[in-house]
Amino acid sequence: MRLYDYPPSGNGYKVRLALSTLGIPYEYVPLDILAGQTRTPEFLAKNPNGRIPLLQLPDRSYLAESNAILFYLAEGTELWPTNKIDQSRVLQWMFFEQYSHEPNIATVRFWVSIKKISPNDPEYTLLESKKQQGYAALSVMENHLRERQYFVGSEFSIADIALYAYTHVASEGGFDLDPYPSVKGWLNRVANRPKHVSITDWD
Amino acid sequence: MRLYDYPPSGNGYKVRLALSTLGIPYEYVPLDILAGQTRTPEFLAKNPNGRIPLLQLPDRSYLAESNAILFYLAEGTELWPTNKIDQSRVLQWMFFEQYSHEPNIATVRFWVSIKKISPNDPEYTLLESKKQQGYAALSVMENHLRERQYFVGSEFSIADIALYAYTHVASEGGFDLDPYPSVKGWLNRVANRPKHVSITDWD
Repeated sequence: MRLYDYPPSGNGYKVRLALSTLGIPYEYVPLDILAGQTRTPEFLAKNPNGRIPLLQLPDRSYLAESNAILFYLAEGTELWPTNKIDQSRVLQWMFFEQYSHEPNIATVRFWVSIKKISPNDPEYTLLESKKQQGYAALSVMENHLRERQYFVGSEFSIADIALYAYTHVASEGGFDLDPYPSVKGWLNRVANRPKHVSITDWD
Repeated sequence: MRLYDYPPSGNGYKVRLALSTLGIPYEYVPLDILAGQTRTPEFLAKNPNGRIPLLQLPDRSYLAESNAILFYLAEGTELWPTNKIDQSRVLQWMFFEQYSHEPNIATVRFWVSIKKISPNDPEYTLLESKKQQGYAALSVMENHLRERQYFVGSEFSIADIALYAYTHVASEGGFDLDPYPSVKGWLNRVANRPKHVSITDWD
């Protein structure tokens, strides 16, 4: 398999963390989204939505959307539960991640630490409301993790991988995780699992 | 099963359309999000993220996130494919819907036709960029549907239900679908399927 990615991306990191956890070898193709490398005609022929991560499957077709790629890799492994209710709850947290968490926590990190926006940039007026909504997502996670080791059932799953990716670098966007001790405990549990890789481990 | 919903919501309509297509009876609980009925302590105890749709399952537990609910209802039926690659592609389109489509097309519809915002409202400055991004999502759909009947394989699936919900009412947000003839043909195919219900059919 071949992974097209932008190395600082948490969405791409989800896929790298799942591949490492499952011990699956892959070819890595880093692209620079700031230089427009995901909007070239060549890349748009692979993913018409012009986004990374993008996984080329063994049949040479392409699969987009980080959380759909996680499902593809996890189905049939210990990262995907065996009963339908737990499977649905894994997806519930993955849709929460893409709708209520990523557009706030990941976007603020991108603006602050990668794009380095200033008060003159149009995004700046949205920063405070995005931070508020990011903290609201962290509160939902804190509440859920208070009496749990992982997001669904008692096992580590792709719901944890999806939510770990941008939560563990939230401080790069200026988020303070100190008021979220259960989230911090969960981040440590994930980071200490076997075959864990860091977001900066790529080649 | 019991469905908590806000009747004009496309996210809630996805669940009603799946329940009707599958012939599953349910109890309907309409809530008014504009009156704060999804932010009461009673509702937050059911869904800490404070959103509809919310489905109470036969075991009395609650499942949130419209597209996770679609998976729960569809798994094991004709609305969910049997092979892993097609399943992953269904999820790819459902994550596309929640990330690239709904926050633009559904949000513009909500602002324009339900909240009825005016140039003095803070959301107004975001309207044009949301419309542009909504049209970008429609272009991705048009390109994909040009030679296809449905989004994945040759069968109607929950990917179609997820994308139909807000696309068929996009005009309520001021979107013009005339430049998207393949999308319009697909909307007609979905509307003419057996056991179809309209977004305004609820009781």
